[in-house]
Amino acid sequence: MLSSRVVAVFFAFCLTLVLNAQAQNADPLPSWADGAAKQAIVGFVSKVTRENSPGFVPVSERIATFDNDGTLWAEQPMYFQLLFALDRLKALAPQHPEWSSQEPFASLLKGDVKGALAGGDHAILEIVMASHAGMTTDEFAAIVKEWIATAKHPLSHLPYTDMVYQPMLEVLAYLRANGFKTFIVSGGGVEFMRPWTQAVYGIPPEQVVGSSIKTEFQMRDGKPVLVRLPQVNFIDDKTGKPVGINQYIGRRPIIAFGNSDGDLQMLQWTTAAAGLRLGVLVHHTDARREWAYDRKSSVGQLDKALDEASVQGWTVVDMKQDWKVIYPHEKR
Amino acid sequence: MLSSRVVAVFFAFCLTLVLNAQAQNADPLPSWADGAAKQAIVGFVSKVTRENSPGFVPVSERIATFDNDGTLWAEQPMYFQLLFALDRLKALAPQHPEWSSQEPFASLLKGDVKGALAGGDHAILEIVMASHAGMTTDEFAAIVKEWIATAKHPLSHLPYTDMVYQPMLEVLAYLRANGFKTFIVSGGGVEFMRPWTQAVYGIPPEQVVGSSIKTEFQMRDGKPVLVRLPQVNFIDDKTGKPVGINQYIGRRPIIAFGNSDGDLQMLQWTTAAAGLRLGVLVHHTDARREWAYDRKSSVGQLDKALDEASVQGWTVVDMKQDWKVIYPHEKR
Repeated sequence: MLSSRVVAVFFAFCLTLVLNAQAQNADPLPSWADGAAKQAIVGFVSKVTRENSPGFVPVSERIATFDNDGTLWAEQPMYFQLLFALDRLKALAPQHPEWSSQEPFASLLKGDVKGALAGGDHAILEIVMASHAGMTTDEFAAIVKEWIATAKHPLSHLPYTDMVYQPMLEVLAYLRANGFKTFIVSGGGVEFMRPWTQAVYGIPPEQVVGSSIKTEFQMRDGKPVLVRLPQVNFIDDKTGKPVGINQYIGRRPIIAFGNSDGDLQMLQWTTAAAGLRLGVLVHHTDARREWAYDRKSSVGQLDKALDEASVQGWTVVDMKQDWKVIYPHEKR
Repeated sequence: MLSSRVVAVFFAFCLTLVLNAQAQNADPLPSWADGAAKQAIVGFVSKVTRENSPGFVPVSERIATFDNDGTLWAEQPMYFQLLFALDRLKALAPQHPEWSSQEPFASLLKGDVKGALAGGDHAILEIVMASHAGMTTDEFAAIVKEWIATAKHPLSHLPYTDMVYQPMLEVLAYLRANGFKTFIVSGGGVEFMRPWTQAVYGIPPEQVVGSSIKTEFQMRDGKPVLVRLPQVNFIDDKTGKPVGINQYIGRRPIIAFGNSDGDLQMLQWTTAAAGLRLGVLVHHTDARREWAYDRKSSVGQLDKALDEASVQGWTVVDMKQDWKVIYPHEKR
């Protein structure tokens, strides 16, 4: 006869089996409506993770890359990093009296963002350099952390990190649970993202690829520092994305998520290689819950990549139809 | 009474406990002589991994960086990547009749390496660009894989991947077993290392930081490729190492291993921050089993960093005294 203790252990064991089975059957993407987009993601993951299946991919090769602006978090009415730069310039203005008569700063400080940006790429570069350079990397990280913890979106009045997409958080977690290494590959500044991507997306700094300015090693009072210089180092956008993937990650993703023409080459690079590949575009179609924009938008323009999606068979996510929830707070 | 099956399970469980305890007590660095260097490494790891100890470091922050040439594998009589470049030029020479009268190629093809290198940095750049650029990244990876699988060291006649340091392989495995993420941070070419670092060191491509040339995204016959251009992108040496660490990894290591003045700033950057930090220099002191060189060597010069080691309390490994075995084949 078995002792009652052994019986108890046996029942505990059976309960564990049942709970595990339930966990495996639970919907890993509860914020996604049942439809072609969800099916494409789940179907792909099941094919590449099933051992002895023809599409099986070993864990080491399960690399997935994600654009950030407009793919993992919102990007309207303008890129959040530009809003950070504006806040930063306002804070620095007292130390720069010359800005009151110098463009693009004069317009910006009067609240005329459109006027400031009328100077084109040159104006944007001036804004980025004045707000992002001139301090050490440690100082810049502290500035970003402070801003991301306190600043609010101008329309929703939510913290920016509450404007991430709940369905995409689920995709990130689902892929990681299936052995994928998840990377951000963004046109945004790499040092603007790294201080908070672990907490918000579960993506550590070393898995964030982005645009950067040059830094210089200096000794200050016998202590080494890295100083951020007002010079562009790398633009991780459009044709820069495959270049950045190759330079930072050193292997080709099998999954790429984007939302704009800035992601076209990343999706081409990812999906053109042999073996199963998944390219996904998030299409902003929900003017009520988020924003609706594509071919004519100045922020996150989606035009050529949308045409290419039908040629290449990439999955296009219709936010209005495919996402039951947009932001995490809607779930609560 | 317990069934015999339950008794068997219980004994199996006890056996597992005993084997685990043995594994924990086994020497993780068997090729290291008992001495100050080994003690410094093991002592550091035990302090940062013991929970509730004042020096405890969470797993996510356990970043360790390693130079490659002279730290993980040998670098004499010249950097192995330069030997690769020479082999490559010989293979390409029939397509370049002009090289027979053009320096540095003319000297090189006659076997006069010293004469070729007399042209200084400019000559080296010409050699690197002629041998490393002009093909796609996929083509270059295939060339490197073929070379590393077949080429032999000019003096030992061993494959280059047999000239890695057994004691360092043990350090890499020991750190990973203790939750560390191990990175290469080398002056060598990143795309020269990535094709073989996983198999040889257990370090995946995305954890290799190195020097690079520029690449360009192109469409060829409707297929995207990255073409390697004859232009320097980044030199990951000296002050470039902290810059590269910040750019690629995005956080500061708590351990750094190097062997030359090229690693000085990496060790400064690593050890100057708050909290427990370990800086280690491998000192080549064994003329019989390996090579003996330091302050006056043209390859892997160790001069300023050796002085700084005593000021900063960095650990200096005396290869002759501290390493019972140099290469893996000595163990067999």
